[in-house]
Amino acid sequence: MIEENWYESVQGFLVDITGVLYDSGGCAIDGSVEAVNRLYNESNVRFVSNESTSTREGICMMLRTLGFLSVQPEHIFTPAPVAAQYIIKHGLSPHLLVHKNVLPEFSNCINFSNGRPCVVLADAESDLDFMNMNKAFRVLHASSNPLLISLGNGKFYHRADQGPCLDTGAYASALKFAVEDAGRRCEHLVIGKPEETYFMTAVGDLGLTKGQVVMIGDDISGDIDGAQKLGIKGIQVRTGKWRAEWEKHPTITPELIADNLLEAVTLILDNQQRIKN
Amino acid sequence: MIEENWYESVQGFLVDITGVLYDSGGCAIDGSVEAVNRLYNESNVRFVSNESTSTREGICMMLRTLGFLSVQPEHIFTPAPVAAQYIIKHGLSPHLLVHKNVLPEFSNCINFSNGRPCVVLADAESDLDFMNMNKAFRVLHASSNPLLISLGNGKFYHRADQGPCLDTGAYASALKFAVEDAGRRCEHLVIGKPEETYFMTAVGDLGLTKGQVVMIGDDISGDIDGAQKLGIKGIQVRTGKWRAEWEKHPTITPELIADNLLEAVTLILDNQQRIKN
Repeated sequence: MIEENWYESVQGFLVDITGVLYDSGGCAIDGSVEAVNRLYNESNVRFVSNESTSTREGICMMLRTLGFLSVQPEHIFTPAPVAAQYIIKHGLSPHLLVHKNVLPEFSNCINFSNGRPCVVLADAESDLDFMNMNKAFRVLHASSNPLLISLGNGKFYHRADQGPCLDTGAYASALKFAVEDAGRRCEHLVIGKPEETYFMTAVGDLGLTKGQVVMIGDDISGDIDGAQKLGIKGIQVRTGKWRAEWEKHPTITPELIADNLLEAVTLILDNQQRIKN
Repeated sequence: MIEENWYESVQGFLVDITGVLYDSGGCAIDGSVEAVNRLYNESNVRFVSNESTSTREGICMMLRTLGFLSVQPEHIFTPAPVAAQYIIKHGLSPHLLVHKNVLPEFSNCINFSNGRPCVVLADAESDLDFMNMNKAFRVLHASSNPLLISLGNGKFYHRADQGPCLDTGAYASALKFAVEDAGRRCEHLVIGKPEETYFMTAVGDLGLTKGQVVMIGDDISGDIDGAQKLGIKGIQVRTGKWRAEWEKHPTITPELIADNLLEAVTLILDNQQRIKN
């Protein structure tokens, strides 16, 4: 059932991290270390994640501990540094409600005190409390032109130690509800999958066009649908948060469904190898 | 500009508490003690508030300290006891995320463990933290038929000691955003102004019909618009959260705008006295 004609055109891979390289229990998924090594040796790869509780360096160190020795921090895309670039480019004055681990990503942009005020909201975990939410709210409430930047806009995620937890999108929704009324909007910029700018930053970093790359992920919405809406091919893996019922999804059909990252990478690279030889 | 013909029909008063009896600094508003005494002596009164950080008894004690000696706790309507009645009537199994001061209002209904699960959300202040929000979310997430009951649905309120704070509606919005998707709704029952059932509970307690009562409040939306939509006359007072621009509101026109509670009560009761004599 696999249409192989598009395999040849793939010159770069965008790969999700959580649920594709490793599972929520903190173990490397079978074959994914081998797959990443092959991608580094035979193609081009960038890792595109919505993770916002750790820096690229922190994620890279964790991946190396799991055996992904070839991964480079500059090949890991997370929303925080992209948000920091945006803040610098637009001279914004950010109020950060983010996880303390990602504060270093914003070290170059917290001194713009005269710019347009904005709130940067991320999965700050236990810092998402009444006092900090009120502080963020007051920044938006006092602004004549309120701007909320959220790192991703997810509904919830699973923590191995706690179970389902509210994700950034829920807290963004709370702030917007309180700030907006009939005569007042709150501009909401989402930085992360499935937003176009975010995907395209990684595609651009590969020096390729969107028709030349594939996205491999476990989330049919943020990864597959997000990529496909931009004209990037989407490969669903049956690991991480994958659910069997998605394979009968009424509106989203991945270009390929593979058991795991290794199967997807093997299919494409072996096919390219056959054509070359 | 005052049409006095409807004054005669007023047989009972619904009066908001915060911003009408006392201000956010904790002082009785000029004339409001005298006005409440007149209402008890010459008419019928119920106090209709969205306050959910204190029990009726607690509010009554606070009002008596401010000089409102005639107020009875059973004449104070707050959302918590109405929610407790609803839970008992429908045999629900509530998960309470409410202020610790109002927990006693739910003492008769926390043992229904086999009913439909629901979350009761109120202004729990500092208890609205990451852990407690996740616990509430998990109740809704695990339910096949999620039900969120919120005590009021406000955007924000002012605290004299802190400034603007997110109100219950914001946190309700967060939970709904996370629970709902294309195929799944979260039923959201708001108990408090401006909901019809809430107003009508107080009207019914007066033994009157909605055409026989007036609502006096400082909030053009929750008090005036809410009452008028049910056919209850609305009197705006220029105290509490009142803003001058509301007097040119494009869609909401109170039956009467008075400087304060005393002026409103005096106008109506003096008029009735004149007609009697």
